Amino acid sequence: MQEILEQALKEGRAQIEKGEVASYIPELAKADKNHLGICIFTKEGERFEAGDTQTRFSIQSISKVISLAMALEKCGFERVFEKIGMEPSGDAFNSLIKLDMVSDAPYNPMINSGAIAVTGFLTEVVSFETMLEFARKLCMDPQIEVNRAVFYSEMENLSRNRAIAYLLESKGVIKTNVESCLELYVQMCSLNVTAKSLAGLGLVLANGGMHPESGARLLDPDVVRIVKTIIFTCGMYDGSGEFAVSVGIPTKSGVGGGLLSVVNKKMGIGIYGPSLDKKGNSIAGRAALKYLSEHLGLHMFAS
Amino acid sequence: MQEILEQALKEGRAQIEKGEVASYIPELAKADKNHLGICIFTKEGERFEAGDTQTRFSIQSISKVISLAMALEKCGFERVFEKIGMEPSGDAFNSLIKLDMVSDAPYNPMINSGAIAVTGFLTEVVSFETMLEFARKLCMDPQIEVNRAVFYSEMENLSRNRAIAYLLESKGVIKTNVESCLELYVQMCSLNVTAKSLAGLGLVLANGGMHPESGARLLDPDVVRIVKTIIFTCGMYDGSGEFAVSVGIPTKSGVGGGLLSVVNKKMGIGIYGPSLDKKGNSIAGRAALKYLSEHLGLHMFAS
Amino acid sequence: MQEILEQALKEGRAQIEKGEVASYIPELAKADKNHLGICIFTKEGERFEAGDTQTRFSIQSISKVISLAMALEKCGFERVFEKIGMEPSGDAFNSLIKLDMVSDAPYNPMINSGAIAVTGFLTEVVSFETMLEFARKLCMDPQIEVNRAVFYSEMENLSRNRAIAYLLESKGVIKTNVESCLELYVQMCSLNVTAKSLAGLGLVLANGGMHPESGARLLDPDVVRIVKTIIFTCGMYDGSGEFAVSVGIPTKSGVGGGLLSVVNKKMGIGIYGPSLDKKGNSIAGRAALKYLSEHLGLHMFAS
Amino acid sequence: MQEILEQALKEGRAQIEKGEVASYIPELAKADKNHLGICIFTKEGERFEAGDTQTRFSIQSISKVISLAMALEKCGFERVFEKIGMEPSGDAFNSLIKLDMVSDAPYNPMINSGAIAVTGFLTEVVSFETMLEFARKLCMDPQIEVNRAVFYSEMENLSRNRAIAYLLESKGVIKTNVESCLELYVQMCSLNVTAKSLAGLGLVLANGGMHPESGARLLDPDVVRIVKTIIFTCGMYDGSGEFAVSVGIPTKSGVGGGLLSVVNKKMGIGIYGPSLDKKGNSIAGRAALKYLSEHLGLHMFAS
Repeated sequence: MQEILEQALKEGRAQIEKGEVASYIPELAKADKNHLGICIFTKEGERFEAGDTQTRFSIQSISKVISLAMALEKCGFERVFEKIGMEPSGDAFNSLIKLDMVSDAPYNPMINSGAIAVTGFLTEVVSFETMLEFARKLCMDPQIEVNRAVFYSEMENLSRNRAIAYLLESKGVIKTNVESCLELYVQMCSLNVTAKSLAGLGLVLANGGMHPESGARLLDPDVVRIVKTIIFTCGMYDGSGEFAVSVGIPTKSGVGGGLLSVVNKKMGIGIYGPSLDKKGNSIAGRAALKYLSEHLGLHMFAS
Repeated sequence: MQEILEQALKEGRAQIEKGEVASYIPELAKADKNHLGICIFTKEGERFEAGDTQTRFSIQSISKVISLAMALEKCGFERVFEKIGMEPSGDAFNSLIKLDMVSDAPYNPMINSGAIAVTGFLTEVVSFETMLEFARKLCMDPQIEVNRAVFYSEMENLSRNRAIAYLLESKGVIKTNVESCLELYVQMCSLNVTAKSLAGLGLVLANGGMHPESGARLLDPDVVRIVKTIIFTCGMYDGSGEFAVSVGIPTKSGVGGGLLSVVNKKMGIGIYGPSLDKKGNSIAGRAALKYLSEHLGLHMFAS
Repeated sequence: MQEILEQALKEGRAQIEKGEVASYIPELAKADKNHLGICIFTKEGERFEAGDTQTRFSIQSISKVISLAMALEKCGFERVFEKIGMEPSGDAFNSLIKLDMVSDAPYNPMINSGAIAVTGFLTEVVSFETMLEFARKLCMDPQIEVNRAVFYSEMENLSRNRAIAYLLESKGVIKTNVESCLELYVQMCSLNVTAKSLAGLGLVLANGGMHPESGARLLDPDVVRIVKTIIFTCGMYDGSGEFAVSVGIPTKSGVGGGLLSVVNKKMGIGIYGPSLDKKGNSIAGRAALKYLSEHLGLHMFAS
Repeated sequence: MQEILEQALKEGRAQIEKGEVASYIPELAKADKNHLGICIFTKEGERFEAGDTQTRFSIQSISKVISLAMALEKCGFERVFEKIGMEPSGDAFNSLIKLDMVSDAPYNPMINSGAIAVTGFLTEVVSFETMLEFARKLCMDPQIEVNRAVFYSEMENLSRNRAIAYLLESKGVIKTNVESCLELYVQMCSLNVTAKSLAGLGLVLANGGMHPESGARLLDPDVVRIVKTIIFTCGMYDGSGEFAVSVGIPTKSGVGGGLLSVVNKKMGIGIYGPSLDKKGNSIAGRAALKYLSEHLGLHMFAS
């Protein structure tokens, strides 16, 4: 396994040059493009690591997974999906088009409009401290904190998400205070994680919501099933379909360079690789995952 | 199993009233709304049936699966996906919007524009007779024929698909004779199948492309993997995401009332239920599948 | 003339029942649907009135004309139209679609996104007091004030315009403080005018920007030409083309029920009629104008 | 006048380099980019010419004006505008988006979808010979013929317009034979005219539909008023609004390089200049018209 992992790292590194680190906020642009770390946690308790697995980076969109899970736990399926869809949008992650035109609901909780709507529900029922505690537990990483520099940098460059949030308010999707909702949204995006934290989160999801060691139930199995399915169909923005075909592992990406992968019933994989492809997904991480999928037979529809 | 199947049939029947048979061509409007048949073929060779499993009906969009498989076998992955995407479109099945606006390629091979493009490739390399033979083999049903009445009815009501085909020609996606391509497309849609034929097709796909009895290889395993993934993410039109969450079984629907479901490595399920919901999917079939998924644990992401 | 005017009033009144007063903010919903007033000021100094010409109502979108004129005077053609187009949008007045999708610039200064962008420029160079003074002069009505009730009602229901403004900020169109810009925008929309004030404004524009009595130049003739053209092609939201064909008089509408019409080189017409058609234009005012156009030969393209 | 005309020619020529001749069909690509001819016919019977006013070229989209006039004469306003709008579309000339998405009717008769719909009506009531005779009379040019080379070249490259036509059929807008409709549409586009023919047509429209010499009524005055308004708001594709502001003369362009301009009640202007700007309008012709508008005071909204 370690050998295959090392080779996956190599395959990933070969792609780094073709991508770019995110630059829409200054703080993200400081990331070292050449970083790449991969971490695998199996249900049996094995842990494999290669590359930059200690580096902390902001979780960004991968926090959408945690927020969705919490919203489903706290508000229930009916409430969450009354105003948010479950369909892949076929559009870029920060698009307003679909929201405005086709329907009065965001397409799914993995795009910004959907995640901001989810955060609107959360704002009404939980504090940020509760969310932080929840994130630490799910990632099995008690050291997760808000990255202040990223948080402030995002808050200063929030026009587009603010536009989305006010549009959601105008459509009656967000009923709480918009600015509080946006603050919580940005706090969640600014959580500092490592490849290991993501592997932990992946393993909890792969394990049906139970802590792999203690056996404690952290999430309802139905919530976990829903979350995994949505990650699979919507997790890689408008490249989700192609990724499902090529790699076939439910994976959520963040522009901070993170990838959270869930190999159902088997393992969690966490990756950090801030060089992004044009759709905003880690370019090296993707190559590494493809290699792992092929050599470990992890594709959901492998025969 | 038979008991669960009977109950699934019952659950399905309870939904029939809420739907309508397709009416866009006169021939489809003649279907008996109350028909419902379900058929399960397992890898172990068991066969279960309930309801109207002998009734022949036109395969319609489920033929897109057969055409895609043949195109991948004959032209290869690169050629097929050079001009056709793999992303769920988030739009209705016969939309021109996405084709026209966002890109020069159809979103995926399960919507009309993508399937017509696939048929364009096929028109260059195979005859209809070859396609018919192929369909019979994959469905393990030598009695499949073109339903003449449906074929002529569709040919007389082809304006929208003709518009799509000429738009594809104008974008250089279709390079063969457009009218021949359309004829082959409609012939494939007009194939007369039963719930059993679809269970057969489902089993071949579940079995990685091998004939479940003879062990003969009918399809390349890579082709099967690709096809199953695309069915999962794009098979139920703009209801694919919600269906994946609720039912979690790769399924392709047709407006003739058919559903083809693939329970990977385990079984094929074929359903006939011509009463459709608003997205064009069998309303009773969907309810029956949901019941089966829950009671047999067939959800892809079940914990 | 007075006779024709009375008849136009009658024609207008016959349509009132078919429309509805604006209801998107509570304050507007209080308007008396049955009000209708028409006022004509000619270049020769004649003034004709019929109906409710003394009633004050909020100017709403007609303020877009005043703001555009001021922006052209203060910032110049190049600056204003570097980031705002001049094309009719073919979409409803408060749409985000076109802004988001086709280009990075609002389609024209008569839709909300364009007018908010114009107000962004103004926020940098003039105070509200200057704008108020300007409005009073152009309308030849020193009693124009902000309608406080309308102002606060709008400020409390601003989500959609706020979404538009932040989207414009995210695209670099608005570079000033967004909330200040929105406040000025709403203040301008809340100006209280009468049918007479609008007839005054119309006459100033018809007269090439000169005060009809004193001969004082209030606006640059190029500015007036630009403003009149844009009113003609974009003044009635997505009904502008049909209105140009049927009535043929450059006219800007507001959801408060006002209509500002400019009969080039001849007269200004001001109308108040708060019963609106589905596109948000005064339904009685439109009918009255059509009658006037036909009986006074006011169509721009009359032979 | 002749002097101003010569100067306008010079102004136009200076722009030629910045444009390109149309290349979407081989036959149009053969045009000499450097050609430029301008012709003015006044109501008083004066005729002014400069440059290449004898060169024949295909009328292309300017035929939409003739077809609309005939449809209004033969079928009446109600019939024509029951299924075709009068709104500028804000989209490019050959777009399918608006047709497909917002409504079931083409936006206006000056874009391809609208003109094809108009031709559908015509196909039911007149022969091509009648249309040809009509075109000759309106243009006061008995030598107009179909340019065979252009006709066949267009017929061979018709996929996009064919797509539009079948989409219109699917929506019930075209009820006649689609291929016959397309043939008539292409025949009309292939009519060979000169700058003089277009000046003639412009003068007839400026003159309210009466032959300027014989005084014979060629068109109903209402039809002329409608046609002129639509040319003003929709004649220059998605550059119509900007052109109205800058030049202010109702003008219809064709990708063959022609411009038909109507100075209401005064004159017709015909231009040939096949070097096109990015929106498909004659780049030199536009510059020449702007010069004429400014120096002869022809802007509709000049003070």
